[in-house]
Amino acid sequence: MPDLAEPLARLVDEFRRLPGVGAKSAQRIAFYVLRASMDDAQRLAQAILDVKEKLGLCRICNNISDSELCPYCTNPSRDQHVICVVEEAPNIIPIEVTRSFDGLYHVLHGSISPLRGIGPEQLRIKSLLERLSDGVVTEIILATNPTVEGEATAAYLARLLKPLGIKVMRIAMGIPVGSDLEYADEVSMSKSMENRREM
Amino acid sequence: MPDLAEPLARLVDEFRRLPGVGAKSAQRIAFYVLRASMDDAQRLAQAILDVKEKLGLCRICNNISDSELCPYCTNPSRDQHVICVVEEAPNIIPIEVTRSFDGLYHVLHGSISPLRGIGPEQLRIKSLLERLSDGVVTEIILATNPTVEGEATAAYLARLLKPLGIKVMRIAMGIPVGSDLEYADEVSMSKSMENRREM
Repeated sequence: MPDLAEPLARLVDEFRRLPGVGAKSAQRIAFYVLRASMDDAQRLAQAILDVKEKLGLCRICNNISDSELCPYCTNPSRDQHVICVVEEAPNIIPIEVTRSFDGLYHVLHGSISPLRGIGPEQLRIKSLLERLSDGVVTEIILATNPTVEGEATAAYLARLLKPLGIKVMRIAMGIPVGSDLEYADEVSMSKSMENRREM
Repeated sequence: MPDLAEPLARLVDEFRRLPGVGAKSAQRIAFYVLRASMDDAQRLAQAILDVKEKLGLCRICNNISDSELCPYCTNPSRDQHVICVVEEAPNIIPIEVTRSFDGLYHVLHGSISPLRGIGPEQLRIKSLLERLSDGVVTEIILATNPTVEGEATAAYLARLLKPLGIKVMRIAMGIPVGSDLEYADEVSMSKSMENRREM
């Protein structure tokens, strides 16, 4: 293999660890950084450190946030009667892109997976129940992934929430089964929100 | 558009600036960094800064190096009679991968381009001539890109070097014309080294 200078070889290795970055891409990006200005390189390095240092979770919905409450929870123009439940924070993005939902969110930070030893108690379900105690929320949309784990989580939440008199909905399976919500195309995602069905 | 926390949105923007990274990839990588350990994030940030701070150019061939001389110039088992001339340091990689060349390199850091106002005097040609003064080098392989600028540079160098009694060769056009050497596939690159022709 070619003899790259050690710091350059190390940067190529670091980029290869990132999702979706292959050997050639990593090399190309590393040489790009090498040729970039010192300012640009420092801004990239600082941005990486900042996401680790400055971000925490919203106290209400567990979305990723740089302050105590996230922009959705503090926006009074959003519908306070509906909460859309997702597995992970990035799953909010394709839903927002469709503009077919203007309620609130709740991030579980995972899904029920007996195989990986993850039960309901490891998910942020208790804080979801607390949000329902004042009776303002009348509908919950379960937007967990269309996978075995996502379905199990939705079924569990439906059993838990329906006795509380709340309308519990599931997004439609317009999105391909077995995939991850993070990569859904806009049209399928929009369809999926429209066709939500009661559980 | 979705309300990403500011540090996260900034990291997505930074990753989008990198070559070959689209909007979705940038998002995916940013969330990956967010979920990575602090150690992993710091190692990535430091690797970025290190390539800018620790790397310079080899005093002999102008290849990127973390010491005064690069590994090719200090390797006595490489053929000291042949120099392969490339436009940029990353162009060395596909040639090394083929294992069909074991001589030395010389990096021009550019190509002749009247349109962009780059003439021979902006390239590292003087230091190439200095390397030829002791008569050890008997062959020069011109591996500039198969583009208008790369051909012009090769033609210029051939005119300059042939009067010195050196065998001047050009890599064969087995690699697709108009492309960049950095992305050549291994087989075409190998063919291209084999079929080099005298100029």
